[in-house]
Amino acid sequence: MAGSTFGDLFRITTFGESHGKAIGVIVDGCPAGLDLSEAIIQPYLDRRRPGVQSYTTARKESDTAKILSGVFEGKSTGTPIAIILENEDQRSRDYGNIAELFRPGHADLTFDSKYGFRDYRGGGRSSGRETAARVAGGAVALEFLKTLGIEVKAAVTMIGGVPAAEAEDVLAAAAARGDSLGGIIECRVTGMPAGVGETVFDKLDALLSQAIMSIGAVKGIEFGEGFGASRLSGSNNNDPMRMKDGQIEFLSHHAGGILGGMSSGDEIVFRAAFKPTPSISSVQQTVTRSGEDTDLVIKGRHDVCILPRAVVVVEAMTGLVLADLLLRNMTARVDNVKRFYQP
Amino acid sequence: MAGSTFGDLFRITTFGESHGKAIGVIVDGCPAGLDLSEAIIQPYLDRRRPGVQSYTTARKESDTAKILSGVFEGKSTGTPIAIILENEDQRSRDYGNIAELFRPGHADLTFDSKYGFRDYRGGGRSSGRETAARVAGGAVALEFLKTLGIEVKAAVTMIGGVPAAEAEDVLAAAAARGDSLGGIIECRVTGMPAGVGETVFDKLDALLSQAIMSIGAVKGIEFGEGFGASRLSGSNNNDPMRMKDGQIEFLSHHAGGILGGMSSGDEIVFRAAFKPTPSISSVQQTVTRSGEDTDLVIKGRHDVCILPRAVVVVEAMTGLVLADLLLRNMTARVDNVKRFYQP
Amino acid sequence: MAGSTFGDLFRITTFGESHGKAIGVIVDGCPAGLDLSEAIIQPYLDRRRPGVQSYTTARKESDTAKILSGVFEGKSTGTPIAIILENEDQRSRDYGNIAELFRPGHADLTFDSKYGFRDYRGGGRSSGRETAARVAGGAVALEFLKTLGIEVKAAVTMIGGVPAAEAEDVLAAAAARGDSLGGIIECRVTGMPAGVGETVFDKLDALLSQAIMSIGAVKGIEFGEGFGASRLSGSNNNDPMRMKDGQIEFLSHHAGGILGGMSSGDEIVFRAAFKPTPSISSVQQTVTRSGEDTDLVIKGRHDVCILPRAVVVVEAMTGLVLADLLLRNMTARVDNVKRFYQP
Amino acid sequence: MAGSTFGDLFRITTFGESHGKAIGVIVDGCPAGLDLSEAIIQPYLDRRRPGVQSYTTARKESDTAKILSGVFEGKSTGTPIAIILENEDQRSRDYGNIAELFRPGHADLTFDSKYGFRDYRGGGRSSGRETAARVAGGAVALEFLKTLGIEVKAAVTMIGGVPAAEAEDVLAAAAARGDSLGGIIECRVTGMPAGVGETVFDKLDALLSQAIMSIGAVKGIEFGEGFGASRLSGSNNNDPMRMKDGQIEFLSHHAGGILGGMSSGDEIVFRAAFKPTPSISSVQQTVTRSGEDTDLVIKGRHDVCILPRAVVVVEAMTGLVLADLLLRNMTARVDNVKRFYQP
Repeated sequence: MAGSTFGDLFRITTFGESHGKAIGVIVDGCPAGLDLSEAIIQPYLDRRRPGVQSYTTARKESDTAKILSGVFEGKSTGTPIAIILENEDQRSRDYGNIAELFRPGHADLTFDSKYGFRDYRGGGRSSGRETAARVAGGAVALEFLKTLGIEVKAAVTMIGGVPAAEAEDVLAAAAARGDSLGGIIECRVTGMPAGVGETVFDKLDALLSQAIMSIGAVKGIEFGEGFGASRLSGSNNNDPMRMKDGQIEFLSHHAGGILGGMSSGDEIVFRAAFKPTPSISSVQQTVTRSGEDTDLVIKGRHDVCILPRAVVVVEAMTGLVLADLLLRNMTARVDNVKRFYQP
Repeated sequence: MAGSTFGDLFRITTFGESHGKAIGVIVDGCPAGLDLSEAIIQPYLDRRRPGVQSYTTARKESDTAKILSGVFEGKSTGTPIAIILENEDQRSRDYGNIAELFRPGHADLTFDSKYGFRDYRGGGRSSGRETAARVAGGAVALEFLKTLGIEVKAAVTMIGGVPAAEAEDVLAAAAARGDSLGGIIECRVTGMPAGVGETVFDKLDALLSQAIMSIGAVKGIEFGEGFGASRLSGSNNNDPMRMKDGQIEFLSHHAGGILGGMSSGDEIVFRAAFKPTPSISSVQQTVTRSGEDTDLVIKGRHDVCILPRAVVVVEAMTGLVLADLLLRNMTARVDNVKRFYQP
Repeated sequence: MAGSTFGDLFRITTFGESHGKAIGVIVDGCPAGLDLSEAIIQPYLDRRRPGVQSYTTARKESDTAKILSGVFEGKSTGTPIAIILENEDQRSRDYGNIAELFRPGHADLTFDSKYGFRDYRGGGRSSGRETAARVAGGAVALEFLKTLGIEVKAAVTMIGGVPAAEAEDVLAAAAARGDSLGGIIECRVTGMPAGVGETVFDKLDALLSQAIMSIGAVKGIEFGEGFGASRLSGSNNNDPMRMKDGQIEFLSHHAGGILGGMSSGDEIVFRAAFKPTPSISSVQQTVTRSGEDTDLVIKGRHDVCILPRAVVVVEAMTGLVLADLLLRNMTARVDNVKRFYQP
Repeated sequence: MAGSTFGDLFRITTFGESHGKAIGVIVDGCPAGLDLSEAIIQPYLDRRRPGVQSYTTARKESDTAKILSGVFEGKSTGTPIAIILENEDQRSRDYGNIAELFRPGHADLTFDSKYGFRDYRGGGRSSGRETAARVAGGAVALEFLKTLGIEVKAAVTMIGGVPAAEAEDVLAAAAARGDSLGGIIECRVTGMPAGVGETVFDKLDALLSQAIMSIGAVKGIEFGEGFGASRLSGSNNNDPMRMKDGQIEFLSHHAGGILGGMSSGDEIVFRAAFKPTPSISSVQQTVTRSGEDTDLVIKGRHDVCILPRAVVVVEAMTGLVLADLLLRNMTARVDNVKRFYQP
């Protein structure tokens, strides 16, 4: 219940701090027989690796995935798949007074409130580095989805309030003044069969919301028409249906591919709002652990904009939710269970 | 895993269809010694009762809460609290061809895809009526929070794109044409101690997102500055801190009271976007279960705008998340455990 | 986490005290399309009803099952099935000093230790009456298993140390002196496919042990050769295999139908040891809530031996474990998932 | 749900096969502030290490615990504690025809039935080696219990049907003929506060039964008088109480320290029956994967009796259940929650 586990049938448990020995993930419940290897997982990790894309931190981590269990002769065996990434960049450094004060926008204050102290090195467990373990686990889920013809594709659509394709100027300006920018990532899922998701608390959109909102920097999520739907009337927001080539076709797509918490067979679409990363260069007002006002200056280089690195994290978390709910959906009907056990 | 259970330590399990014999909830894990009675729970249910507020459905349901277990001599006993609401309005009626086609914007298509058939009477399990059970369970959570000085307060802020206070005209117009409107509910929580929430997947905002997004009509959620934060720079979005009267004070409130998934001690603020209810009077294009195009006309009176009735549902779901995470937080430190067992 | 929920995919949540308004169960995750009605469930409840068999309590409860949800036109719908049993025998009575002292062998002391007080009427939540809700839920599981050709059959094999068939004399003697007797129930499952059960913590025998040990009076459980296996050598305890008519046949049956926590395809066999019910007529030494020595005399008529009524409870709990693990097993292989979604 | 996770608030997730790269455990939910280091955990692992005690396998594994996360400056931080043990003895070897047939008494048949294939090297996931991860996780739990004054102590009491102290002859004889022996391990817990455990499905004895029965070789478990209680009358089996020095004293101990699923404050006592390990030297009848009769001869040296190595495994699993239920118990009363948040 300390919340390092996510999912029910397809489930990950992660561990690791920014500057500990390693971070990692255990994937439990991945069906047996999936093609898996370190070479298959690595490209996912490379997409969130620091130092690759512009305006991201220069921290050097090769983020090499090492599979410790659950794979035999190139296939998942049904037993837990443990994947670890060793932290290479653990060199002793000067953390200054960071242990003794609370950085604005970070989890320092809340960590101390909860646990009484914290591993202050590089943000500890609340570091963005934690998401590498999600990507490793999500890679397994996404590979599994591929075998079912399901594709998850996210992209940065907005940065600092401007379309991502036109954001070079605002990024350069923010970098120049040591500032940071947020933005929006949109995610689309194609190939989902209809009826996946549970009907009350574990709705497909509800679990996706937990999954995406649990990514550190996310402050909002919306499906299909989203907040815009709050401004429409029912006659404009409902998606009419017609048959086309023996399939149901939606004539509009306000629902975002989900009706009553279950996939409708239409493309799934959602957007997540990311806040600007809180590590910036300007002087900030804050307080110390002992309750005194102080001013904070954070040194070193940081991500100007984490969104390019977060795209694969959004895909990973989406893949985990879909894989879990697809498995859960298999037991929904007696006749399917009978067909399984008495083919 | 069919998802009718929500919460870990403070947990509800709900049941019931729109036109079955009864709906209800089991609250498991409510600490013993809480003042409870039907009279305490009833006012919460009255706030979502149909036929009370304008522009809501005229269905007649007294929604009388009946406690079946878990309360003895006016106090919760620590054992499961079962509360049922009998469905009074079960009269046989003409459901027309509703069983044979899929209403746009409803869960008809997805229910059939998942289970092969559905209880089509009044929307069955996917009816808004299901939320009455959430309110009954949430009432227990909210009463528990009150004993800790924590208050959850939601309100409708926008209807159909205009501020709720000025929405009378758009509501009247929508009612006149048999249409419906969505809107926005904002929720604020005061009195939360800092440090509540888990650090990775079960972040306070992540679980609130699941809870709120699981309410049928919700299509988006945002915390604090929310989607607006995606347009700010870090230097504007970070909330500076200063000491005031021995307490930490935030000089701005973009974070919405949550840092790193844990409560910061500041007021918690989030907004949920509700789509317009899909039951409208105009002719709609849809398809039948047997795969033929058809046109649908829904008869009877429906909610023009469900938001006034949904306010207490948002409070209920929020209360359930807070109660659960407050209990989970009690075990975070060895010294607290020791003090508990060796006072 | 207050532990009133059991199972993952096929899951029950129970509620109710001995002398509250009602007891009941919510079955969540039962696949859609199962034939269900009150008439189907009632015979299971009749088998544990008090006052039917000799040497059981004369309490009058018709234990009439009422289905509130989850069944439509005689079939399970996939949504939660709520079943309640109203407590008829709630008449106000003289509980004497039972509220103020701890009955030996009962949960009075421990309930007070945990919660600070208790609903002392008839044992409250710890009454054997709680098992009626298990039977109602288990009935659904057992009906589901029947559709797969799986049969669960328990029987009383020993009472008070003598074979059940020869126990009339010891029962009569115990009844005459106001005493009680325990015994052993053996349970056998036929028709189980091989490979059901998980490989580490959720082994089939591990979950059956939790399920059976959670029945109030059970103090031990053993599978196959059980405690006897601790006295055998490996060469005697291993079950050799041979092919017969294209099927694997075990030449002996020490394993009890389970290998490595999964069903082997052989008949599953286990035995549960029941203690004698603690309600007896003789004077007993005990202490009061306020910490004083006292002597207790329990009045009224009680079960001399609860085992005949417990047979269906053992079957119910067994059915719940099997149903859950059968569903969980369906997702074990990628090729099966693919066949499900791309038939 | 693949069952590699155990516990709710204090929770472990394990991974690893006998001959993979490593095995390990993630402990999630350990309260912050516990003294922890590799030096503290190692002695627990040394107690189950092969090749140390007589009549155990000569496999060489140093079983060196490496903590990857969750500990900072010698204290648990509240975040997940990952511990891995690298498999040193992975040398390529001749597994003979073991991949193609089912060893009697092993999980070969059931693994193949479930997953379609298996990692056959050394028993894969079903190897006794899996228990090393349990011991590493359990060590953390046992250290936590020590801070509360709770001690868990197991011992081998019977081997092959004779008292452990007199078993040298039967062990030597079994070793000489390449056979194996089972036995009984008794476990006692002192220092448990009363009221710990949940009242229905998650009874203290129910969860201990799951925990202990999930150890590969265990075939039975009993609490207190256990199977013997099935032969007693209620008047003999009930434990009378008297006050002594202001504390409740039980005048007998048939209940084994548990009443109604909660700890009574008395010493907790249970016994687990272990079957003889199935790896023996004699020729055994079995079948191949392709359905042909064959005879099996297992080469190499194996444990004659695993019980000495299993003692610490029993303690570990016991410690995990107790730690979890102790944490869960902290939230049972409103007044305790209030005292926590408003001291």
